[in-house]
Amino acid sequence: MLVKLSVEEFSQVLGSNSPAPGGGSVAALSGALGADLVSMVCSLSIGKKEFESFQAELTGALQESQNLSKSLVKRIDLDTEAFNAVMAAFKMAKETEQDKASRAEAIQNGFKEAVQSPLGIAQECLKVLQLARGLVGKSNSNALSDLGVASLQAYAGLEGAIMNVKINIPSIKDGDFVAETSIEISTLLEEGLRVKDDINKYVYDKFG
Amino acid sequence: MLVKLSVEEFSQVLGSNSPAPGGGSVAALSGALGADLVSMVCSLSIGKKEFESFQAELTGALQESQNLSKSLVKRIDLDTEAFNAVMAAFKMAKETEQDKASRAEAIQNGFKEAVQSPLGIAQECLKVLQLARGLVGKSNSNALSDLGVASLQAYAGLEGAIMNVKINIPSIKDGDFVAETSIEISTLLEEGLRVKDDINKYVYDKFG
Repeated sequence: MLVKLSVEEFSQVLGSNSPAPGGGSVAALSGALGADLVSMVCSLSIGKKEFESFQAELTGALQESQNLSKSLVKRIDLDTEAFNAVMAAFKMAKETEQDKASRAEAIQNGFKEAVQSPLGIAQECLKVLQLARGLVGKSNSNALSDLGVASLQAYAGLEGAIMNVKINIPSIKDGDFVAETSIEISTLLEEGLRVKDDINKYVYDKFG
Repeated sequence: MLVKLSVEEFSQVLGSNSPAPGGGSVAALSGALGADLVSMVCSLSIGKKEFESFQAELTGALQESQNLSKSLVKRIDLDTEAFNAVMAAFKMAKETEQDKASRAEAIQNGFKEAVQSPLGIAQECLKVLQLARGLVGKSNSNALSDLGVASLQAYAGLEGAIMNVKINIPSIKDGDFVAETSIEISTLLEEGLRVKDDINKYVYDKFG
C-alpha cells in the first residue's frame, strides 16, 4: 500500500519511471493535506475565548475534516488501483470474438472507474474547501497561513483530480456518462475556484 | 523525522492539535510531489522516438527535478524545525537585562529563519514550475495530466510558502530584510503564476 510508505519513499516511488502512482494519487494526497490543515486550524481554535460562540461549529468541522482526510488518504491507493485495472484490461487475451468482447468491456469499465475515482477526489476536495471557508473569521489568526495552505492544497487536489478525469473521458463510449461527467467537472471547478478565491482574499487582507 | 513517517502517519500528525508541522512543511511536500511528477514525465518521455531531439534536455530536466525533490523533501523537516526554534526562543529566560537581550535576539533570529525557510521552498517550487514548463510539447501525452498536476502542486507549494513568509514578516524588526523579502516574494508569486498559467493553458488546450 502506498500510504504505508514513508513520505520520503512515496516521493521516490512517485518520481520513478512507472506511470503509477501518478497525478491522481497526488491529487488525493493534496486534498488529504488540506483536510489535515483544516483539522489543525479547528483544534487550535476550539477552546479559545474569542471563538466561544462557534464551538459547536468548529467541533463539527473538525469531525468532518478528519473523516475527509481518512477518505482521501484511502483514495491515494484506490486511484492507483483504478489506473492499474485499465492497464490490466488492455493486457487481456484478444484471440476469440468472446475474448475481444470481454476485453473491450473490461477496458470500458476500467476507464469509467478511472474517471469516477478522480471525480470522487474532486468532490471531497470541494468539501474540504467549503469547510476551510467556514473557518474564515472563526479561527485562530496564528494559524492564518495554515488556513490559506489548506485551501491551496484542497484546490490543487480538486483541479488535479479534474485533469485526471479529463484525460480519461475521451476513451469512454457511453455518451450519457460523458455528458453528465462533463457538466459535473465544470461545476466542481467553478465552485472550487470561487471558494478558494474567497479564502485567499480573506487571508491576504488579514496579512495586510 | 517527519519524512520517515508513513504517508498515513504524516497525515495524522499534521491534523493533530500541534501547530507543527503546519503549512510550511506541507508547502515543501507539495513542491516535492510536483518535482517527482516532473521526474516521472521526463522518464516516460526519454527514449520515445517522438521526442528524440529533446533527449539531452529531458535527461537534464530529470536530473534537476530529482535534485529539487530531494531538497524539498529535506525542507519538510527543516521548516518545522525553524518554527520550533521560534517557539523555543519565546520560552527563554527573561529575568535579567542580559536574559532579555539574548531572548530578543534569539526571537529575531528565529523569525528570520522562519521567513528564510519558506522563501527557499518558494524559490525551489518556482524552479519546479520552470522545469515543468520546459516539458510542454516535449513530453509523453499519456502523461499530460501528470504534467498538469506537477504544475498545480508546485504552484500550491510556492503560494503556500509565500503565505508562510507573510505571516512571519511583521515580527521582524530589520527593515532592510523586510523590504528585500517583500520584493522577492512579489516577484516569485508573479512569475510562478505566469508559468503555472502557461502550463495550464497548454494542458487544457490539449485536452480539447
